[in-house]
Amino acid sequence: MNDTLKAAKEVSIQAIREAGQVVKDHFGRFSVLQEKGAYGDVVTEADVMAEQVILREITRFFPDHQIHSEETGDNGQASDWLWMVDPLDGTNNFVIGLPVFSCSITLLYKFEPVMGVIYEPIMDRLFFTSRSEGAFCNNERMRVNKKAELRKGTIGWIQGHVVQNDARAVHLRQHLDIHFKRMMRLWAPTLQWCMLAKGDLDGIVLYNSEGDDLYSGMLMVKEAGGLVMDFQGNEVDGMIEEPYLIACHPEHKDDFLDVVRAGLCSQ
Amino acid sequence: MNDTLKAAKEVSIQAIREAGQVVKDHFGRFSVLQEKGAYGDVVTEADVMAEQVILREITRFFPDHQIHSEETGDNGQASDWLWMVDPLDGTNNFVIGLPVFSCSITLLYKFEPVMGVIYEPIMDRLFFTSRSEGAFCNNERMRVNKKAELRKGTIGWIQGHVVQNDARAVHLRQHLDIHFKRMMRLWAPTLQWCMLAKGDLDGIVLYNSEGDDLYSGMLMVKEAGGLVMDFQGNEVDGMIEEPYLIACHPEHKDDFLDVVRAGLCSQ
Repeated sequence: MNDTLKAAKEVSIQAIREAGQVVKDHFGRFSVLQEKGAYGDVVTEADVMAEQVILREITRFFPDHQIHSEETGDNGQASDWLWMVDPLDGTNNFVIGLPVFSCSITLLYKFEPVMGVIYEPIMDRLFFTSRSEGAFCNNERMRVNKKAELRKGTIGWIQGHVVQNDARAVHLRQHLDIHFKRMMRLWAPTLQWCMLAKGDLDGIVLYNSEGDDLYSGMLMVKEAGGLVMDFQGNEVDGMIEEPYLIACHPEHKDDFLDVVRAGLCSQ
Repeated sequence: MNDTLKAAKEVSIQAIREAGQVVKDHFGRFSVLQEKGAYGDVVTEADVMAEQVILREITRFFPDHQIHSEETGDNGQASDWLWMVDPLDGTNNFVIGLPVFSCSITLLYKFEPVMGVIYEPIMDRLFFTSRSEGAFCNNERMRVNKKAELRKGTIGWIQGHVVQNDARAVHLRQHLDIHFKRMMRLWAPTLQWCMLAKGDLDGIVLYNSEGDDLYSGMLMVKEAGGLVMDFQGNEVDGMIEEPYLIACHPEHKDDFLDVVRAGLCSQ
Protein backbone atom coordinates (compact mmCIF):
# COMPACT_ATOMS: atom_id res chain seq x y z
CA MET A 1 0.00 0.00 0.00
CA ASN A 2 2.80 2.44 0.79
CA ASP A 3 4.40 1.96 -2.62
CA THR A 4 1.07 2.65 -4.28
CA LEU A 5 0.61 5.80 -2.21
CA LYS A 6 4.08 7.01 -2.99
CA ALA A 7 3.54 6.52 -6.70
CA ALA A 8 0.05 8.03 -6.43
CA LYS A 9 1.50 11.18 -4.92
CA GLU A 10 3.96 11.66 -7.74
CA VAL A 11 1.44 10.92 -10.46
CA SER A 12 -1.22 13.19 -8.93
CA ILE A 13 1.05 16.16 -8.46
CA GLN A 14 2.40 15.97 -11.96
CA ALA A 15 -1.08 15.48 -13.45
CA ILE A 16 -2.75 18.22 -11.42
CA ARG A 17 -0.08 20.76 -12.32
CA GLU A 18 -0.54 19.94 -15.99
CA ALA A 19 -4.34 20.15 -15.66
CA GLY A 20 -3.99 23.45 -13.80
CA GLN A 21 -1.96 24.86 -16.63
CA VAL A 22 -4.71 23.91 -19.07
CA VAL A 23 -7.28 25.63 -16.88
CA LYS A 24 -5.13 28.73 -16.47
CA ASP A 25 -4.54 28.95 -20.22
CA HIS A 26 -8.30 28.95 -20.80
CA PHE A 27 -9.07 31.56 -18.14
CA GLY A 28 -10.63 34.64 -19.71
CA ARG A 29 -11.11 32.94 -23.05
CA PHE A 30 -13.16 29.87 -22.21
CA SER A 31 -16.14 28.62 -24.12
CA VAL A 32 -19.11 27.22 -22.31
CA LEU A 33 -19.93 23.81 -23.75
CA GLN A 34 -23.27 23.28 -22.10
CA GLU A 35 -25.44 23.95 -19.13
CA LYS A 36 -25.37 21.06 -16.71
CA GLY A 37 -28.39 19.86 -14.78
CA ALA A 38 -31.36 22.00 -13.92
CA TYR A 39 -29.52 24.66 -11.97
CA GLY A 40 -27.80 26.70 -14.65
CA ASP A 41 -24.34 25.32 -13.91
CA VAL A 42 -21.98 25.12 -16.81
CA VAL A 43 -19.25 22.96 -18.24
CA THR A 44 -16.43 24.55 -20.18
CA GLU A 45 -13.77 23.24 -22.51
CA ALA A 46 -11.36 23.75 -19.63
CA ASP A 47 -13.26 21.28 -17.39
CA VAL A 48 -13.20 18.65 -20.09
CA MET A 49 -9.60 19.11 -21.18
CA ALA A 50 -8.25 19.26 -17.63
CA GLU A 51 -10.13 16.10 -16.76
CA GLN A 52 -8.67 14.31 -19.78
CA VAL A 53 -5.16 15.17 -18.62
CA ILE A 54 -5.76 13.80 -15.14
CA LEU A 55 -7.59 10.65 -16.28
CA ARG A 56 -4.88 9.89 -18.81
CA GLU A 57 -2.15 10.00 -16.17
CA ILE A 58 -4.03 8.00 -13.53
CA THR A 59 -5.04 5.37 -16.05
CA ARG A 60 -1.51 5.11 -17.40
CA PHE A 61 0.00 4.30 -14.00
CA PHE A 62 -2.96 2.62 -12.29
CA PRO A 63 -4.98 0.90 -15.01
CA ASP A 64 -6.78 -1.36 -12.50
CA HIS A 65 -7.98 1.38 -10.18
CA GLN A 66 -11.52 2.62 -10.08
CA ILE A 67 -11.84 6.27 -11.11
CA HIS A 68 -14.79 8.55 -10.66
CA SER A 69 -14.63 11.92 -12.29
CA GLU A 70 -16.90 14.95 -12.45
CA GLU A 71 -17.55 15.03 -16.18
CA THR A 72 -16.84 11.48 -17.36
CA GLY A 73 -18.42 9.53 -14.49
CA ASP A 74 -17.14 6.10 -13.42
CA ASN A 75 -14.62 3.99 -15.32
CA GLY A 76 -16.29 0.79 -14.17
CA GLN A 77 -13.23 -0.84 -12.60
CA ALA A 78 -13.69 -2.86 -9.40
CA SER A 79 -10.85 -2.02 -7.04
CA ASP A 80 -10.06 -1.18 -3.42
CA TRP A 81 -8.54 2.01 -4.80
CA LEU A 82 -10.94 4.73 -5.84
CA TRP A 83 -9.85 8.00 -7.39
CA MET A 84 -12.17 10.97 -7.36
CA VAL A 85 -11.38 13.74 -9.81
CA ASP A 86 -12.85 17.22 -9.98
CA PRO A 87 -10.89 18.89 -12.75
CA LEU A 88 -12.31 22.37 -12.15
CA ASP A 89 -14.01 23.16 -8.89
CA GLY A 90 -15.45 26.65 -9.12
CA THR A 91 -16.46 26.60 -12.79
CA ASN A 92 -19.03 29.33 -12.21
CA ASN A 93 -16.28 31.62 -10.90
CA PHE A 94 -14.00 30.64 -13.77
CA VAL A 95 -16.69 31.62 -16.25
CA ILE A 96 -17.25 35.10 -14.76
CA GLY A 97 -13.54 35.86 -14.60
CA LEU A 98 -13.20 35.45 -10.84
CA PRO A 99 -9.81 33.84 -10.08
CA VAL A 100 -11.21 31.49 -7.43
CA PHE A 101 -11.14 27.89 -8.62
CA SER A 102 -9.01 24.79 -8.31
CA CYS A 103 -8.39 21.24 -9.49
CA SER A 104 -8.88 18.38 -7.05
CA ILE A 105 -7.79 14.75 -6.90
CA THR A 106 -8.66 12.39 -4.05
CA LEU A 107 -7.53 8.82 -3.53
CA LEU A 108 -9.58 6.52 -1.34
CA TYR A 109 -8.70 3.04 -0.15
CA LYS A 110 -11.65 0.86 0.82
CA PHE A 111 -13.80 3.99 0.86
CA GLU A 112 -11.51 5.90 3.21
CA PRO A 113 -9.75 9.02 1.90
CA VAL A 114 -5.99 8.46 2.06
CA MET A 115 -4.63 11.24 -0.13
CA GLY A 116 -5.81 14.63 -1.37
CA VAL A 117 -4.21 16.98 -3.88
CA ILE A 118 -5.68 20.37 -4.67
CA TYR A 119 -4.11 22.87 -7.03
CA GLU A 120 -4.94 26.55 -7.40
CA PRO A 121 -3.45 27.40 -10.79
CA ILE A 122 -3.77 31.18 -10.67
CA MET A 123 -1.80 31.37 -7.42
CA ASP A 124 0.38 28.34 -8.16
CA ARG A 125 -0.56 26.93 -4.74
CA LEU A 126 -0.35 23.18 -4.38
CA PHE A 127 -2.16 21.70 -1.40
CA PHE A 128 -1.23 18.15 -0.46
CA THR A 129 -2.29 15.79 2.28
CA SER A 130 -1.99 12.13 3.00
CA ARG A 131 -3.42 10.20 5.89
CA SER A 132 -1.46 10.62 9.15
CA GLU A 133 1.18 12.70 7.40
CA GLY A 134 -0.20 16.20 7.73
CA ALA A 135 -1.39 18.81 5.27
CA PHE A 136 0.81 21.14 3.26
CA CYS A 137 0.58 24.22 1.08
CA ASN A 138 3.57 24.38 -1.26
CA ASN A 139 5.39 22.04 1.14
CA GLU A 140 4.68 24.24 4.15
CA ARG A 141 2.81 22.56 6.98
CA MET A 142 -0.72 23.87 7.52
CA ARG A 143 -2.63 24.14 10.80
CA VAL A 144 -6.21 25.18 11.42
CA ASN A 145 -6.49 28.42 13.31
CA LYS A 146 -8.01 28.99 16.73
CA LYS A 147 -9.68 32.39 16.54
CA ALA A 148 -9.73 34.25 19.84
CA GLU A 149 -13.25 35.54 19.21
CA LEU A 150 -14.97 33.06 16.93
CA ARG A 151 -17.91 35.33 16.10
CA LYS A 152 -15.46 37.87 14.66
CA GLY A 153 -14.24 35.17 12.31
CA THR A 154 -14.92 34.29 8.69
CA ILE A 155 -16.65 31.02 7.93
CA GLY A 156 -17.40 29.25 4.70
CA TRP A 157 -20.79 28.00 3.58
CA ILE A 158 -21.03 25.08 1.16
CA GLN A 159 -24.26 23.61 -0.10
CA GLY A 160 -25.11 20.90 -2.59
CA HIS A 161 -26.63 21.57 -5.99
CA VAL A 162 -29.89 19.94 -4.99
CA VAL A 163 -30.32 22.22 -1.98
CA GLN A 164 -31.06 25.47 -3.82
CA ASN A 165 -33.41 27.50 -1.66
CA ASP A 166 -34.62 24.68 0.55
CA ALA A 167 -36.25 26.54 3.46
CA ARG A 168 -34.23 24.88 6.23
CA ALA A 169 -30.95 25.53 4.40
CA VAL A 170 -31.82 29.15 3.67
CA HIS A 171 -32.73 29.69 7.29
CA LEU A 172 -29.48 28.19 8.55
CA ARG A 173 -27.28 30.11 6.16
CA GLN A 174 -29.05 33.37 6.96
CA HIS A 175 -28.61 32.65 10.65
CA LEU A 176 -24.88 32.03 10.18
CA ASP A 177 -24.55 35.09 7.96
CA ILE A 178 -25.55 37.39 10.80
CA HIS A 179 -23.78 35.49 13.59
CA PHE A 180 -20.27 35.71 12.21
CA LYS A 181 -18.33 38.70 10.98
CA ARG A 182 -18.41 37.20 7.53
CA MET A 183 -19.99 34.18 5.93
CA MET A 184 -18.35 33.40 2.66
CA ARG A 185 -20.06 31.51 -0.08
CA LEU A 186 -17.33 31.10 -2.64
CA TRP A 187 -18.93 28.47 -4.87
CA ALA A 188 -15.52 26.77 -4.86
CA PRO A 189 -15.79 24.29 -1.97
CA THR A 190 -12.39 22.69 -2.34
CA LEU A 191 -10.62 26.01 -1.89
CA GLN A 192 -12.69 26.76 1.18
CA TRP A 193 -11.47 23.52 2.77
CA CYS A 194 -7.90 24.54 1.95
CA MET A 195 -8.45 27.99 3.44
CA LEU A 196 -9.72 26.41 6.64
CA ALA A 197 -6.75 24.03 6.78
CA LYS A 198 -4.40 26.95 6.20
CA GLY A 199 -5.88 28.95 9.07
CA ASP A 200 -7.45 31.58 6.79
CA LEU A 201 -11.04 30.55 7.48
CA ASP A 202 -12.41 29.83 10.94
CA GLY A 203 -14.94 27.19 10.06
CA ILE A 204 -17.08 25.56 7.40
CA VAL A 205 -20.71 24.57 7.47
CA LEU A 206 -21.63 22.17 4.71
CA TYR A 207 -25.24 21.43 3.88
CA ASN A 208 -25.88 18.27 1.92
CA SER A 209 -23.06 18.61 -0.55
CA GLU A 210 -21.57 15.34 -1.68
CA GLY A 211 -19.32 15.01 -4.67
CA ASP A 212 -15.92 14.42 -6.15
CA ASP A 213 -14.73 17.61 -4.52
CA LEU A 214 -15.47 16.72 -0.90
CA TYR A 215 -12.94 14.21 0.40
CA SER A 216 -9.67 15.87 -0.56
CA GLY A 217 -10.77 18.95 1.37
CA MET A 218 -12.05 17.00 4.36
CA LEU A 219 -8.79 15.09 4.68
CA MET A 220 -6.85 18.32 4.25
CA VAL A 221 -8.63 19.88 7.23
CA LYS A 222 -8.37 16.81 9.43
CA GLU A 223 -4.66 16.49 8.71
CA ALA A 224 -4.27 20.16 9.58
CA GLY A 225 -5.65 19.43 13.03
CA GLY A 226 -9.27 20.31 12.29
CA LEU A 227 -12.39 18.61 13.51
CA VAL A 228 -15.00 17.40 11.02
CA MET A 229 -18.32 16.45 12.58
CA ASP A 230 -21.98 16.10 11.71
CA PHE A 231 -24.68 18.40 13.10
CA GLN A 232 -25.02 16.05 16.11
CA GLY A 233 -21.36 16.48 16.99
CA ASN A 234 -20.22 13.02 15.86
CA GLU A 235 -16.84 12.96 14.25
CA VAL A 236 -17.03 12.06 10.57
CA ASP A 237 -14.65 9.86 8.64
CA GLY A 238 -14.92 8.07 5.33
CA MET A 239 -17.65 8.53 2.77
CA ILE A 240 -21.10 9.86 3.50
CA GLU A 241 -24.13 9.86 1.28
CA GLU A 242 -25.86 13.03 2.47
CA PRO A 243 -23.32 14.99 4.46
CA TYR A 244 -24.30 17.77 6.82
CA LEU A 245 -21.01 18.86 8.30
CA ILE A 246 -19.26 21.34 10.53
CA ALA A 247 -15.50 21.72 10.30
CA CYS A 248 -13.50 23.87 12.68
CA HIS A 249 -10.75 24.00 15.25
CA PRO A 250 -11.49 21.27 17.85
CA GLU A 251 -11.79 23.81 20.62
CA HIS A 252 -14.61 25.58 18.80
CA LYS A 253 -16.68 22.41 18.71
CA ASP A 254 -19.37 23.36 21.23
CA ASP A 255 -19.63 26.94 20.08
CA PHE A 256 -20.16 25.85 16.49
CA LEU A 257 -22.69 23.18 17.39
CA ASP A 258 -24.64 25.76 19.37
CA VAL A 259 -24.82 28.29 16.58
CA VAL A 260 -25.75 25.70 13.95
CA ARG A 261 -28.42 24.15 16.16
CA ALA A 262 -29.84 27.57 16.90
CA GLY A 263 -29.99 28.22 13.17
CA LEU A 264 -31.82 24.95 12.58
CA CYS A 265 -34.27 25.35 15.46
CA SER A 266 -35.20 28.99 15.34
CA GLN A 267 -37.43 28.71 12.29
CA MET B 1 -9.11 70.52 -18.62
CA ASN B 2 -8.30 68.04 -21.36
CA ASP B 3 -4.57 68.43 -20.83
CA THR B 4 -5.01 67.80 -17.12
CA LEU B 5 -7.07 64.70 -17.86
CA LYS B 6 -4.52 63.41 -20.31
CA ALA B 7 -1.72 63.86 -17.81
CA ALA B 8 -3.90 62.41 -15.02
CA LYS B 9 -4.42 59.26 -17.04
CA GLU B 10 -0.71 58.71 -17.54
CA VAL B 11 0.17 59.46 -13.94
CA SER B 12 -2.61 57.25 -12.55
CA ILE B 13 -1.83 54.25 -14.67
CA GLN B 14 1.86 54.39 -13.86
CA ALA B 15 1.18 54.90 -10.13
CA ILE B 16 -1.48 52.22 -9.85
CA ARG B 17 0.69 49.63 -11.55
CA GLU B 18 3.51 50.42 -9.15
CA ALA B 19 1.13 50.28 -6.17
CA GLY B 20 -0.30 47.01 -7.45
CA GLN B 21 3.16 45.52 -7.58
CA VAL B 22 3.69 46.48 -3.94
CA VAL B 23 0.40 44.85 -3.00
CA LYS B 24 1.19 41.72 -4.99
CA ASP B 25 4.64 41.44 -3.42
CA HIS B 26 3.04 41.50 0.04
CA PHE B 27 0.36 38.94 -0.76
CA GLY B 28 0.74 35.86 1.41
CA ARG B 29 3.28 37.55 3.65
CA PHE B 30 1.49 40.64 4.86
CA SER B 31 1.46 41.91 8.37
CA VAL B 32 -1.66 43.39 9.87
CA LEU B 33 -0.83 46.80 11.34
CA GLN B 34 -4.05 47.42 13.17
CA GLU B 35 -7.73 46.83 13.33
CA LYS B 36 -9.66 49.74 11.89
CA GLY B 37 -12.90 51.01 13.34
CA ALA B 38 -15.33 48.94 15.34
CA TYR B 39 -15.97 46.25 12.76
CA GLY B 40 -12.84 44.18 12.83
CA ASP B 41 -11.50 45.50 9.52
CA VAL B 42 -7.78 45.63 9.17
CA VAL B 43 -5.02 47.72 7.69
CA THR B 44 -1.87 46.05 6.43
CA GLU B 45 1.56 47.28 5.49
CA ALA B 46 0.49 46.77 1.89
CA ASP B 47 -2.38 49.31 2.22
CA VAL B 48 -0.04 51.90 3.64
CA MET B 49 2.85 51.35 1.24
CA ALA B 50 0.63 51.22 -1.84
CA GLU B 51 -1.06 54.43 -0.77
CA GLN B 52 2.29 56.16 -0.34
CA VAL B 53 3.27 55.24 -3.89
CA ILE B 54 0.05 56.66 -5.33
CA LEU B 55 0.05 59.83 -3.20
CA ARG B 56 3.67 60.51 -4.06
CA GLU B 57 2.97 60.39 -7.80
CA ILE B 58 -0.23 62.44 -7.71
CA THR B 59 1.38 65.08 -5.50
CA ARG B 60 4.45 65.24 -7.71
CA PHE B 61 2.46 66.06 -10.83
CA PHE B 62 -0.57 67.83 -9.32
CA PRO B 63 0.63 69.56 -6.16
CA ASP B 64 -2.42 71.86 -6.08
CA HIS B 65 -5.09 69.18 -6.33
CA GLN B 66 -7.14 67.98 -3.40
CA ILE B 67 -6.52 64.34 -2.54
CA HIS B 68 -8.58 62.13 -0.32
CA SER B 69 -7.18 58.72 0.47
CA GLU B 70 -8.38 55.73 2.47
CA GLU B 71 -5.62 55.61 5.08
CA THR B 72 -4.20 59.16 5.11
CA GLY B 73 -7.41 61.16 4.83
CA ASP B 74 -7.52 64.57 3.16
CA ASN B 75 -4.50 66.62 2.07
CA GLY B 76 -6.34 69.87 2.80
CA GLN B 77 -5.90 71.46 -0.63
CA ALA B 78 -8.79 73.50 -2.03
CA SER B 79 -9.20 72.65 -5.70
CA ASP B 80 -11.80 71.83 -8.34
CA TRP B 81 -9.87 68.61 -8.82
CA LEU B 82 -10.39 65.94 -6.23
CA TRP B 83 -8.55 62.62 -6.25
CA MET B 84 -9.93 59.69 -4.31
CA VAL B 85 -7.50 56.90 -3.59
CA ASP B 86 -8.25 53.44 -2.25
CA PRO B 87 -4.88 51.70 -2.33
CA LEU B 88 -6.24 48.25 -1.45
CA ASP B 89 -9.91 47.54 -1.83
CA GLY B 90 -10.59 44.06 -0.47
CA THR B 91 -8.09 44.10 2.38
CA ASN B 92 -10.06 41.44 4.23
CA ASN B 93 -9.67 39.11 1.24
CA PHE B 94 -6.00 40.00 0.92
CA VAL B 95 -5.43 39.05 4.55
CA ILE B 96 -7.06 35.61 4.22
CA GLY B 97 -5.17 34.78 1.05
CA LEU B 98 -8.09 35.22 -1.32
CA PRO B 99 -6.82 36.77 -4.58
CA VAL B 100 -9.75 39.17 -4.90
CA PHE B 101 -8.65 42.76 -4.32
CA SER B 102 -7.67 45.83 -6.31
CA CYS B 103 -6.28 49.34 -6.19
CA SER B 104 -8.53 52.24 -7.17
CA ILE B 105 -7.96 55.86 -8.18
CA THR B 106 -10.76 58.27 -9.05
CA LEU B 107 -10.51 61.80 -10.31
CA LEU B 108 -13.44 64.18 -9.85
CA TYR B 109 -13.87 67.66 -11.27
CA LYS B 110 -16.27 69.90 -9.35
CA PHE B 111 -17.55 66.79 -7.57
CA GLU B 112 -18.28 64.88 -10.76
CA PRO B 113 -16.27 61.72 -11.47
CA VAL B 114 -14.32 62.22 -14.70
CA MET B 115 -11.79 59.39 -14.59
CA GLY B 116 -11.47 56.01 -12.90
CA VAL B 117 -8.54 53.60 -12.82
CA ILE B 118 -8.77 50.23 -11.12
CA TYR B 119 -6.00 47.67 -11.11
CA GLU B 120 -6.21 43.99 -10.18
CA PRO B 121 -2.58 43.09 -9.54
CA ILE B 122 -2.94 39.30 -9.31
CA MET B 123 -4.55 39.12 -12.74
CA ASP B 124 -2.68 42.11 -14.17
CA ARG B 125 -6.01 43.57 -15.29
CA LEU B 126 -6.12 47.32 -15.71
CA PHE B 127 -9.58 48.88 -15.87
CA PHE B 128 -9.77 52.42 -17.17
CA THR B 129 -12.59 54.81 -17.84
CA SER B 130 -12.95 58.48 -18.51
CA ARG B 131 -16.12 60.47 -18.95
CA SER B 132 -17.76 60.07 -22.39
CA GLU B 133 -14.88 57.92 -23.60
CA GLY B 134 -15.98 54.45 -22.59
CA ALA B 135 -14.65 51.81 -20.21
CA PHE B 136 -11.80 49.44 -20.92
CA CYS B 137 -10.19 46.31 -19.48
CA ASN B 138 -6.59 46.08 -20.67
CA ASN B 139 -7.53 48.41 -23.54
CA GLU B 140 -10.46 46.28 -24.60
CA ARG B 141 -13.83 48.01 -24.63
CA MET B 142 -16.28 46.77 -21.98
CA ARG B 143 -20.05 46.59 -22.19
CA VAL B 144 -22.57 45.62 -19.53
CA ASN B 145 -24.37 42.40 -20.33
CA LYS B 146 -28.06 41.89 -20.94
CA LYS B 147 -28.89 38.51 -19.41
CA ALA B 148 -31.69 36.69 -21.18
CA GLU B 149 -33.14 35.46 -17.89
CA LEU B 150 -32.16 37.95 -15.22
CA ARG B 151 -33.13 35.72 -12.30
CA LYS B 152 -30.62 33.13 -13.51
CA GLY B 153 -27.94 35.77 -13.25
CA THR B 154 -25.29 36.63 -10.69
CA ILE B 155 -25.55 39.92 -8.85
CA GLY B 156 -23.23 41.66 -6.46
CA TRP B 157 -24.15 42.97 -3.03
CA ILE B 158 -22.20 45.88 -1.53
CA GLN B 159 -22.92 47.39 1.85
CA GLY B 160 -21.25 50.09 3.92
CA HIS B 161 -19.26 49.41 7.06
CA VAL B 162 -21.86 51.11 9.22
CA VAL B 163 -24.66 48.87 7.92
CA GLN B 164 -23.59 45.63 9.59
CA ASN B 165 -26.75 43.66 10.38
CA ASP B 166 -29.21 46.53 10.12
CA ALA B 167 -32.57 44.73 9.89
CA ARG B 168 -33.72 46.37 6.66
CA ALA B 169 -30.41 45.65 4.95
CA VAL B 170 -30.35 42.04 6.11
CA HIS B 171 -33.87 41.55 4.87
CA LEU B 172 -33.10 43.01 1.46
CA ARG B 173 -29.93 41.01 0.97
CA GLN B 174 -31.64 37.80 2.03
CA HIS B 175 -34.45 38.55 -0.39
CA LEU B 176 -31.99 39.10 -3.24
CA ASP B 177 -30.04 36.00 -2.25
CA ILE B 178 -33.00 33.75 -2.98
CA HIS B 179 -34.32 35.66 -6.00
CA PHE B 180 -31.22 35.35 -8.17
CA LYS B 181 -29.18 32.31 -9.06
CA ARG B 182 -26.32 33.78 -7.10
CA MET B 183 -25.80 36.80 -4.93
CA MET B 184 -22.14 37.52 -4.51
CA ARG B 185 -20.78 39.43 -1.58
CA LEU B 186 -17.13 39.75 -2.45
CA TRP B 187 -16.08 42.38 0.07
CA ALA B 188 -14.17 44.01 -2.78
CA PRO B 189 -16.68 46.54 -4.17
CA THR B 190 -14.46 48.07 -6.82
CA LEU B 191 -13.93 44.72 -8.50
CA GLN B 192 -17.64 44.04 -8.46
CA TRP B 193 -18.24 47.28 -10.39
CA CYS B 194 -15.60 46.18 -12.90
CA MET B 195 -17.22 42.75 -13.24
CA LEU B 196 -20.56 44.41 -13.96
CA ALA B 197 -18.98 46.73 -16.53
CA LYS B 198 -17.25 43.76 -18.14
CA GLY B 199 -20.48 41.80 -18.45
CA ASP B 200 -19.52 39.17 -15.88
CA LEU B 201 -22.05 40.29 -13.27
CA ASP B 202 -25.69 41.07 -14.07
CA GLY B 203 -26.29 43.74 -11.48
CA ILE B 204 -25.22 45.38 -8.25
CA VAL B 205 -27.27 46.44 -5.28
CA LEU B 206 -25.43 48.83 -3.01
CA TYR B 207 -26.72 49.63 0.44
CA ASN B 208 -25.39 52.79 2.03
CA SER B 209 -21.77 52.37 1.05
CA GLU B 210 -19.95 55.59 0.41
CA GLY B 211 -16.21 55.85 0.18
CA ASP B 212 -13.08 56.33 -1.82
CA ASP B 213 -13.85 53.14 -3.70
CA LEU B 214 -17.26 54.11 -5.09
CA TYR B 215 -16.90 56.58 -7.93
CA SER B 216 -14.31 54.87 -10.12
CA GLY B 217 -16.60 51.83 -10.24
CA MET B 218 -19.76 53.82 -10.84
CA LEU B 219 -18.19 55.68 -13.75
CA MET B 220 -16.81 52.40 -15.11
CA VAL B 221 -20.32 50.91 -15.26
CA LYS B 222 -21.95 54.01 -16.72
CA GLU B 223 -19.28 54.25 -19.40
CA ALA B 224 -19.86 50.57 -20.19
CA GLY B 225 -23.49 51.36 -20.96
CA GLY B 226 -24.88 50.54 -17.53
CA LEU B 227 -27.59 52.32 -15.61
CA VAL B 228 -26.94 53.53 -12.07
CA MET B 229 -30.07 54.58 -10.18
CA ASP B 230 -31.36 54.99 -6.67
CA PHE B 231 -34.05 52.75 -5.16
CA GLN B 232 -36.69 55.14 -6.56
CA GLY B 233 -35.42 54.65 -10.09
CA ASN B 234 -33.79 58.08 -10.46
CA GLU B 235 -30.55 58.06 -12.37
CA VAL B 236 -27.58 58.91 -10.18
CA ASP B 237 -24.63 61.06 -11.12
CA GLY B 238 -21.98 62.81 -9.07
CA MET B 239 -21.36 62.34 -5.38
CA ILE B 240 -23.91 61.10 -2.90
CA GLU B 241 -23.74 61.14 0.86
CA GLU B 242 -25.73 58.01 1.65
CA PRO B 243 -26.02 56.04 -1.55
CA TYR B 244 -28.60 53.30 -2.00
CA LEU B 245 -28.03 52.16 -5.55
CA ILE B 246 -28.96 49.67 -8.21
CA ALA B 247 -26.70 49.23 -11.22
CA CYS B 248 -27.62 47.07 -14.19
CA HIS B 249 -28.25 46.92 -17.90
CA PRO B 250 -30.76 49.69 -18.73
CA GLU B 251 -33.29 47.16 -20.00
CA HIS B 252 -33.36 45.45 -16.62
CA LYS B 253 -34.38 48.66 -14.87
CA ASP B 254 -37.97 47.78 -14.04
CA ASP B 255 -37.24 44.20 -13.15
CA PHE B 256 -34.51 45.26 -10.70
CA LEU B 257 -36.61 47.99 -9.13
CA ASP B 258 -39.39 45.44 -8.59
CA VAL B 259 -37.20 42.89 -6.86
CA VAL B 260 -35.47 45.48 -4.66
CA ARG B 261 -38.76 47.09 -3.68
CA ALA B 262 -40.24 43.71 -2.87
CA GLY B 263 -37.22 43.03 -0.66
CA LEU B 264 -37.68 46.32 1.15
CA CYS B 265 -41.44 46.02 1.61
CA SER B 266 -41.93 42.38 2.50
CA GLN B 267 -40.59 42.71 6.03
